[in-house]
Amino acid sequence: MKLIADNLRITKTDVQDALNVRDPRPVQDLVKLCAAKMAFAIDVNTGPLGKSPEEGMVFFIKAVESVTNLPLLIDTSNPAAMRAGVEAAHNRVIINGFSLEPQKIEKILPLAQEHDADIVGFLLYPDSRVPKDEAERFEVALELFERAEAAGVSKERIIIDPIVPPLAWEDGIVQARSVLNVIRTLPDLMGFPVRTIAGVSNLTTGAKDKAKKNLMEQAYVAMLAAAGLDYALLDILNGETVLAANAAAILAREDIFSWGMIPG
Amino acid sequence: MKLIADNLRITKTDVQDALNVRDPRPVQDLVKLCAAKMAFAIDVNTGPLGKSPEEGMVFFIKAVESVTNLPLLIDTSNPAAMRAGVEAAHNRVIINGFSLEPQKIEKILPLAQEHDADIVGFLLYPDSRVPKDEAERFEVALELFERAEAAGVSKERIIIDPIVPPLAWEDGIVQARSVLNVIRTLPDLMGFPVRTIAGVSNLTTGAKDKAKKNLMEQAYVAMLAAAGLDYALLDILNGETVLAANAAAILAREDIFSWGMIPG
Repeated sequence: MKLIADNLRITKTDVQDALNVRDPRPVQDLVKLCAAKMAFAIDVNTGPLGKSPEEGMVFFIKAVESVTNLPLLIDTSNPAAMRAGVEAAHNRVIINGFSLEPQKIEKILPLAQEHDADIVGFLLYPDSRVPKDEAERFEVALELFERAEAAGVSKERIIIDPIVPPLAWEDGIVQARSVLNVIRTLPDLMGFPVRTIAGVSNLTTGAKDKAKKNLMEQAYVAMLAAAGLDYALLDILNGETVLAANAAAILAREDIFSWGMIPG
Repeated sequence: MKLIADNLRITKTDVQDALNVRDPRPVQDLVKLCAAKMAFAIDVNTGPLGKSPEEGMVFFIKAVESVTNLPLLIDTSNPAAMRAGVEAAHNRVIINGFSLEPQKIEKILPLAQEHDADIVGFLLYPDSRVPKDEAERFEVALELFERAEAAGVSKERIIIDPIVPPLAWEDGIVQARSVLNVIRTLPDLMGFPVRTIAGVSNLTTGAKDKAKKNLMEQAYVAMLAAAGLDYALLDILNGETVLAANAAAILAREDIFSWGMIPG
């Protein structure tokens, strides 16, 4: 299980401010911190980027690439911004992502074929509804793979995001367990080693109590690792959760173990 | 997943000393601490108890029962001590435990039938070797259930202990994952909700670095909970591991979730 930083996101005031005044330094400082924590990749969550999506995206890509060679997940729902990002990037790119929503099938999925890039596929219905159980999740996954094949994107390029639910949902725990089962069983169901990604911090969306939030994240990230998750998207600057995730990642590998493998 | 205290064990100097001078107070003090941490049960690990196993066991049972009504796991390899413990106890008793070792089949397993008690069944070969993979573990489990049935002990009385391996073993990680798979799949294989127990601290036997030991235990206990473990035997006075175990236990249940469910 590799850790991807979810720290660079437009919903943070300082990131939005950096964009507003086109000052790359706050973005660079944040990315340097994430890289120092041994992130495998950086999620560049720009949002839709309003009136000048291309130029806004290029600002972010340039800022990030000026301080790191790590792979970038380009994380926007705006197809124009996505295209601009994929075209501007020099680092390895992962398109984050597409779903069964018609606009994404038409305008975002083809970018994976054009640029021979990995692409995240969200287990969501065309209207962005979340599937309600494992059977529905498997159906959506099958359709995502069919759509990808039709677009000339090989199945090995797809990284499935089963959408971690907030525990605050009425059936959040049941859905969180369903996500674990989907991650564990998708490779058998599809007959090849399907890669998966999950946004760990979604689990505790809305939670106020930091200590309890950390406890639940740490337990769940260990469960995700045991289920065979490939990429955990998380706050890489949360030292406790990262230590827990790395310990779980070590247990989830079939290596020779030594205590020296554990950081911290 | 319920938590059982593994704190009362003869390998601790103060517990051995208490036995030597037949002073119940150190035992009582320890058990009171464990009960205060909301242990579901207390493992009374007396060892074989040397020359006067019956009287030694009765000393422990009386000492423990003078301060708690919690269920007791009577944890000795000596059949005479086990019988004395089961007969002396007033609290609910879990016999811990039997294996395919002939002496245990002959002298310990029948106690479960005589006293209508739960009994732990270790996944070990008759010579106490640990099975080397899942197939071997399933074979041993099947034979344990057969032996139990032959002794008039219903399968619902058996709590399977798949034996958590130390990570320090050359293939410790592989075995630790095999244990998770066995816990998850035994109920399907056997066709009924097989109960399971695991000694969490076995994982880090021999480890010196307390922080790393905790990290690995916390990750593994979450994986055990997700696999469906019923009883986690652990150091109930290790606050960090207990918080992690309780958080994992909450995620592993299919309840309505609320943040108030999380202790600490």
